[in-house]
Amino acid sequence: MKALSPTDSAFLWMETRNQPMHVAGLNIYTPPKGAGPEFVGQMLDEWRQHLGAEAPFNLKPRLRLGMWYWEEDTDFEMDYHVRHLALPQPGRIRELLALVSRVHGNLMDRSRPLWECYVIEGLPGGRFATYIKMHHALIDGVSGARMTAQAMATTAAEHKPPLWAQSLGKVPKPRPASASKSLLAQLSELAQAGREILPGIGAGLVDMARSASGEETAIPTLKAPPTPFNVEISGARRFAAQSFPLSRLKRIGQAANATVNDVTLAICAGALRQYLQTHAKLPAKPLVAMVPVSLHGETDLGGNQVTLLLAELATHIKDPLKRLEKIKASTTQAKDKLRSMSRLQKMAYGMTSIATFGPALVTKLAGKYPPFNLVISNVPGSRETLYMNGATLDEIYPVSIPTHYLALNITISGYRDNLGFGFIACRRSVPALQRMLDYTEQSIEELEKALGLNAPVAKKKAAAPAPKKPHKPVAKKT
Amino acid sequence: MKALSPTDSAFLWMETRNQPMHVAGLNIYTPPKGAGPEFVGQMLDEWRQHLGAEAPFNLKPRLRLGMWYWEEDTDFEMDYHVRHLALPQPGRIRELLALVSRVHGNLMDRSRPLWECYVIEGLPGGRFATYIKMHHALIDGVSGARMTAQAMATTAAEHKPPLWAQSLGKVPKPRPASASKSLLAQLSELAQAGREILPGIGAGLVDMARSASGEETAIPTLKAPPTPFNVEISGARRFAAQSFPLSRLKRIGQAANATVNDVTLAICAGALRQYLQTHAKLPAKPLVAMVPVSLHGETDLGGNQVTLLLAELATHIKDPLKRLEKIKASTTQAKDKLRSMSRLQKMAYGMTSIATFGPALVTKLAGKYPPFNLVISNVPGSRETLYMNGATLDEIYPVSIPTHYLALNITISGYRDNLGFGFIACRRSVPALQRMLDYTEQSIEELEKALGLNAPVAKKKAAAPAPKKPHKPVAKKT
Repeated sequence: MKALSPTDSAFLWMETRNQPMHVAGLNIYTPPKGAGPEFVGQMLDEWRQHLGAEAPFNLKPRLRLGMWYWEEDTDFEMDYHVRHLALPQPGRIRELLALVSRVHGNLMDRSRPLWECYVIEGLPGGRFATYIKMHHALIDGVSGARMTAQAMATTAAEHKPPLWAQSLGKVPKPRPASASKSLLAQLSELAQAGREILPGIGAGLVDMARSASGEETAIPTLKAPPTPFNVEISGARRFAAQSFPLSRLKRIGQAANATVNDVTLAICAGALRQYLQTHAKLPAKPLVAMVPVSLHGETDLGGNQVTLLLAELATHIKDPLKRLEKIKASTTQAKDKLRSMSRLQKMAYGMTSIATFGPALVTKLAGKYPPFNLVISNVPGSRETLYMNGATLDEIYPVSIPTHYLALNITISGYRDNLGFGFIACRRSVPALQRMLDYTEQSIEELEKALGLNAPVAKKKAAAPAPKKPHKPVAKKT
Repeated sequence: MKALSPTDSAFLWMETRNQPMHVAGLNIYTPPKGAGPEFVGQMLDEWRQHLGAEAPFNLKPRLRLGMWYWEEDTDFEMDYHVRHLALPQPGRIRELLALVSRVHGNLMDRSRPLWECYVIEGLPGGRFATYIKMHHALIDGVSGARMTAQAMATTAAEHKPPLWAQSLGKVPKPRPASASKSLLAQLSELAQAGREILPGIGAGLVDMARSASGEETAIPTLKAPPTPFNVEISGARRFAAQSFPLSRLKRIGQAANATVNDVTLAICAGALRQYLQTHAKLPAKPLVAMVPVSLHGETDLGGNQVTLLLAELATHIKDPLKRLEKIKASTTQAKDKLRSMSRLQKMAYGMTSIATFGPALVTKLAGKYPPFNLVISNVPGSRETLYMNGATLDEIYPVSIPTHYLALNITISGYRDNLGFGFIACRRSVPALQRMLDYTEQSIEELEKALGLNAPVAKKKAAAPAPKKPHKPVAKKT
């Protein structure tokens, strides 16, 4: 049995029926040429040859004396974790996103390893999808995406074992120094180190970050306005997704002398402005986005190592170029501060503000005085084409976590020459989420127009076309 | 806003991620002759013409000052409640039951009316299924099944609106006398009346029933042995189902001078004995089943009105006829006692022992000294053939609620000339549940053989055959 770090444990403690704490990835595939309707079934049969699961996919949580541990599931049942589904007629992307919206709202069974893999057939032309859900206590979104990619093949010829049957070396690390200490001793240790959030700490997020960093100037003093996204959430979800060519964003970046990350934020800002205007809820003050920055590789600790930026989205500015300039200034300032911090300070700063549960601690005040309005996260992805049992991976979309007072999350994943935008929201608080896809497209066009760039011939690159019918863009169908 | 009765509220209070408190019905249909693959989609389009929902399908729960109320959902969204799904290839009953097993473990979103309707296409020959889930706080299983049947047509020609768009007059009744009283006043009123269970009452179930009934002799003093079914449960479910011809049970009943209910219990007893023997867990003492008896029509109160019998299942007896005799004696004695009780006493007796959450109150002692081992429930159904949009309803299976210390539930529903057996269990505590279907068939055969009855030519009547291929029995495929 391995003790979870307090941060990882927090994802278990904070989970409720309205606030499940899992991340997921939606991948869409084209089967190899000549594959028949039995392709997916045969792939599953191949997977069933692998009876067990490797760490961390064999580990279930166990609560003992107020502490969470990972222990091996000795009755591992693959048929529970791997779920074969089909889309109803006509099997459009619309039906796929409706399905993902539903399953993403369901809690996982804690008596088993905290992951589920859905294999969904029935898209036109024999295309199929996987939706792989993992608990954030087990793995953070970046590691999860990386592992999923790592488990795939880089040629159509190679057949690898399924994700969970590969030794990917991502065993959650025990904390040997403190695992044997009492909970109280650990708590006081943590309080001293000031670098972890535990439930029950009631101080404001910004105050915590300030005192934890030990450097007042490192903390942006942005004030986020109340918005419809900063409310208590329900248990139901809505997911919307679409890919855009990276080349379009790069072209905008070159013309405006901005990074792709800043352009991404500007595109989101334009879409958010349009959404809030349509609902007559655009605040006079600009929205603030929390942008997680991974410290993977910068620290030698396992688990969830993340710091963050707070970026002003300049949603109060109508002109798209002026909006982009303001965003650039805001992120440049934040990055300068981060650079001046030591690694420990960065971690302290990040840990006290972990995107997915920080605000939930801040009580109902978070609705009135949100420390930020939403999380916009960019997950690095593979540039090269990936394959699974000969099927080509066409599209990748991250599905993240809405929480109380952060009802909307935008997570973006790069894959090949595209950026896959995944919008996940509380279905109650963020109605008509699918419109956000249109607004995103319009937001890109607006920037292109302002910079005098001709819109490309193929405006949207949503997916590789299906063999027979052309694959229509996701947006219109969601 | 209407206050829930404390009994109905208890189903909300007692619900946890491991113990969802909803009941469901699985119906299997054959589309009308000549219907194409678009039949189900067209039916859903017809349903979408009905924009709203009638009571109780428009009511969501709301907690105010420690009390639960029903209030209308003014943002009713049919696409959230009605879910179109398809079975993957090869679309057998096995795939259908795997799907039902999964969705039955998912909690519902409490910010919406507490029901979900899944329309599942992809069975051979164009057959399809509906799985309709309703929260027990909203409706008990008997009323739910009755309403579902009532909402259907009795001829193929008639097209009725969907269930939720019909005024079926089953509005949960407010409790006008106590709705305005404080929670404390209500609690004390209830404690006086001694006829409701509320969370936090820690006394043993049998003791409660004894004191509540005010008549010690009315309480059977059966002692149930500990079994693998009387354990804490996980959040995952397994569902197994099969139909048997009522004629077989009637013939056994006639030959053995027993009621169909007693024969049903004897069949379950034989299957349970076999299951426990196979797992080397058959206790020396006989299992005790709790058999709910509906008081519908006997009282003028709304909501969940149920009393119960405790029946000894004689699982320690090898001879199937002697086992049936013992069961007969046990239920006859229990029924005699019930008859001698007044309606109020019956209700008091039943209320303090409500099947689905009573034992959860009894702490971990329920594992060591279970008041009974499982619930076996018989839900009355329609004898005449029912139709939905021209499709013929072939089979009905109830899907009930496992709870802590009652990991297995058997609910049986009559329809036409068949009895549909639905076995629902915690997937962790009751492994290989599908075997129970074989054991049930064997248990019937054993009784037939002992009574010198020739086994009928068609041993199992699992379903109306699919137009092309004969529909193989459910059991072998689960």
